[in-house]
Amino acid sequence: MSELRQNPATKEWVIVATERAKRPDDFAKKTVEPVKKPAYDPKCPFCPGNESLCTKEVFAYRENGTAPNTPGWTLKVVPNKFAALYPGELVRGGNFFKTMSGIGVHEVVVETPEHHLTMGTMSVEQIEKVISAYSERYHAISEDKRMDLITIFRNNGKSAGTSLEHPHSQIIGSPIVPVHIRYKIQEAVRYFDDTGRCVYCDALKEELAIKDKIVLETNEFVALEPFASKSPFETWILPKKHESSFKNINTAEKRDLAKVLREVLGKLYVGLNDPSYNMMIHSAPRQEDPADYYHWHIQIVPRITTPAGFELGSGIYINVVRPEDAAKFLREMRSS
Amino acid sequence: MSELRQNPATKEWVIVATERAKRPDDFAKKTVEPVKKPAYDPKCPFCPGNESLCTKEVFAYRENGTAPNTPGWTLKVVPNKFAALYPGELVRGGNFFKTMSGIGVHEVVVETPEHHLTMGTMSVEQIEKVISAYSERYHAISEDKRMDLITIFRNNGKSAGTSLEHPHSQIIGSPIVPVHIRYKIQEAVRYFDDTGRCVYCDALKEELAIKDKIVLETNEFVALEPFASKSPFETWILPKKHESSFKNINTAEKRDLAKVLREVLGKLYVGLNDPSYNMMIHSAPRQEDPADYYHWHIQIVPRITTPAGFELGSGIYINVVRPEDAAKFLREMRSS
Repeated sequence: MSELRQNPATKEWVIVATERAKRPDDFAKKTVEPVKKPAYDPKCPFCPGNESLCTKEVFAYRENGTAPNTPGWTLKVVPNKFAALYPGELVRGGNFFKTMSGIGVHEVVVETPEHHLTMGTMSVEQIEKVISAYSERYHAISEDKRMDLITIFRNNGKSAGTSLEHPHSQIIGSPIVPVHIRYKIQEAVRYFDDTGRCVYCDALKEELAIKDKIVLETNEFVALEPFASKSPFETWILPKKHESSFKNINTAEKRDLAKVLREVLGKLYVGLNDPSYNMMIHSAPRQEDPADYYHWHIQIVPRITTPAGFELGSGIYINVVRPEDAAKFLREMRSS
Repeated sequence: MSELRQNPATKEWVIVATERAKRPDDFAKKTVEPVKKPAYDPKCPFCPGNESLCTKEVFAYRENGTAPNTPGWTLKVVPNKFAALYPGELVRGGNFFKTMSGIGVHEVVVETPEHHLTMGTMSVEQIEKVISAYSERYHAISEDKRMDLITIFRNNGKSAGTSLEHPHSQIIGSPIVPVHIRYKIQEAVRYFDDTGRCVYCDALKEELAIKDKIVLETNEFVALEPFASKSPFETWILPKKHESSFKNINTAEKRDLAKVLREVLGKLYVGLNDPSYNMMIHSAPRQEDPADYYHWHIQIVPRITTPAGFELGSGIYINVVRPEDAAKFLREMRSS
């Protein structure tokens, strides 16, 4: 038999199809041995020495005395050469069919000079730099009050939509709050109005009591497989302290989060053989910060199954691995 | 510059990124020549003669005098061997984390005995049979009043999540209306309360006046590229007459829809070289039929680009082909 499970925060139902269930091991065996990549690729626009192939840096951590747009950076942020949104004037148009000029910010965080790494094989220190850069740019982009939503994300591997393999993340500041996020917030508000509490705080408390879906726990964060995961090995990382926006992450949390990300992504790297995945930081929109009802979190979605017509048509996802089994597999898995 | 466009029915925004735009031709060139498939595959559970590899038929169109579960069928419907939902008792459980037994119906429509066809190369007469079978099964599944939503879909090709290449569609009856669909209906109700009209009827009227996104028009249906298409070549087919549920399709519409599907899918087959796609019939949930505010429609989503971290995180899709350009390309394309 299969089971329908409801996400308590969003009220979305998923089908956990245990009849067609796969064991976590099945995914590991099916993937191939990761290709060994070179530490430097002469054609890669993000490798040091190739700065002329890349857009000009807007932010960098550098060795002392090195000039912008030359080697010496240990991390840099550049505008996306093929941006989805551009600086400009916000102009609204249309009557029945409404339009808005595609204004916004679209940046790339080049996470390390080393071409062959990924966040699951990087040093914790380097990941801490990445998180600090996310935070710096989040604050800088927030200065423009038209930027209602800031989305930080990482596409890892071809099935996750990456075109460049050099380790990088992206940040998009957009002038709208999509209905997708409005609905999520409405549900969280409804829960808060009923109980006076944050639904994410309550879910965390429940999960820490049940324990079976926890991957790891540190002073500041919990990594877990959500009760109503939409796909195998969907993993969330939540701060223990209630906070609606990633913008307000503190120094201790940055350091701790670097350790957690390294550990979780290292386990996925080994356990699923360097899978394609998307990682997203879900943070409150500008006008919902601070909010007692919303709780920022990181979502990691390995792209090892394909959502098909039923998912696209109904919005109900079929997950073939029980989150409890995925959590056990990851708890017992060594990190890279 | 790119442009933000809002779907008038759902209020979802998409980014049409004209700076990174691709010409429709780019997609056609990139794909490879379709592999020639055999008309019969001895290992295929859906080929005639292999009935012992398949679940027992629940419905069929057959040559006179042939027995169930033997060759002679021209179309058959069978339970999905790896069903997502099963017959059973609806049992609710859980407190904070809510569950429901995974009850429902999950059927496969084996569209033709001929292994090598797809809906873009099938005869119009055969497609009319498929639509009639959809309608028959929709009515039969509706008899169980617990089935709040019936989703008919077709996964074509590997990137669309198909595991079996023999031409088939699927039907899932589920005991819930997901929030995904509740929200869509809420928006349609809001429009109706403001105007007294169906937003889909109004969108159709607007599109027929502008003409630039129409692929084709018949007596009963319109095929078009929606103003705020989420991905390149997303195509909708809408009945001209207001009707909330596919359940109520009449004989003239079935015949006409077969022609439209053959023409549209034939154009996609030739124009994009047999692309992977998902096709979904969006129909009102049981308790919203009839409804003056909802309008059933077919959505076809070619899987030629990959939604990545930004789409998963924000719900905002980036579309690299203007719907107007896609429509022109398809209007001028011959059908297979």
